[in-house]
Amino acid sequence: MEWVTEPRVTAEAIKAANESFYRAFRERDFLAMKRIWATQVPVACIHPGMAPLLGHGEVMASWRGILAHPGAPILFCSAVNVHVLGTSALLTCLEGEKNDLPRLVATNVFTIENGQWRLSHHHGAALLTPPDKPKPKDHTLN
Amino acid sequence: MEWVTEPRVTAEAIKAANESFYRAFRERDFLAMKRIWATQVPVACIHPGMAPLLGHGEVMASWRGILAHPGAPILFCSAVNVHVLGTSALLTCLEGEKNDLPRLVATNVFTIENGQWRLSHHHGAALLTPPDKPKPKDHTLN
Repeated sequence: MEWVTEPRVTAEAIKAANESFYRAFRERDFLAMKRIWATQVPVACIHPGMAPLLGHGEVMASWRGILAHPGAPILFCSAVNVHVLGTSALLTCLEGEKNDLPRLVATNVFTIENGQWRLSHHHGAALLTPPDKPKPKDHTLN
Repeated sequence: MEWVTEPRVTAEAIKAANESFYRAFRERDFLAMKRIWATQVPVACIHPGMAPLLGHGEVMASWRGILAHPGAPILFCSAVNVHVLGTSALLTCLEGEKNDLPRLVATNVFTIENGQWRLSHHHGAALLTPPDKPKPKDHTLN
């Protein structure tokens, strides 16, 4: 049972929810992963290089497969940035294995359900330009 | 001056805003591109393979560069899906040049400002798995 009824609309609360997602991923904890995803709004998930998965069933089936896969990476996130958008929040971050440069970039969208921030969308994608490299003035879509 | 005060919280209104974004992109119309982005909330943008750009200044500078770039693609979107999240909306779609198979996948987040849906986040990424290919049962993060 959840006792929190007033959502804590702070970047810290959203970052904590985000950290729960990556911890569930690292620990291959499917139940914790399931708990972090929203259930009262439709969800979506874009794994690197793939087309969107839509709906709780498809998204959870993909995570069940990933968490059971011996080759799945152990990811930590960095450069976390949060934009609160009313009762939703947009989080961007970089993802990488411990002690390595980040090699993925992610968009995570959270929504409030029963006073808790829940993930309603994850989009992970390959990072091709090192984040510490100075940005070119003329951005191209490579 | 905008006369619409009641936001139209419908998938159609959000899809129309999304189409304005791709039209501004195709037509290299920087003013139209600027108009579609939110100004009352912070914005973010992830171009394919790159780290997140944060804030109106960085994001608009990137679009100014892209729209002036002769090699920028002329993209049409397909497989559009919308999830309304209160006063925000999450849209996923595929992106591709006319008559070609989609080669990018996008997450677009919209928020309501003065009764209009505005873009608060765009994340474009390379699509490596053809969307029409049957999905493998065992999703990996390649």
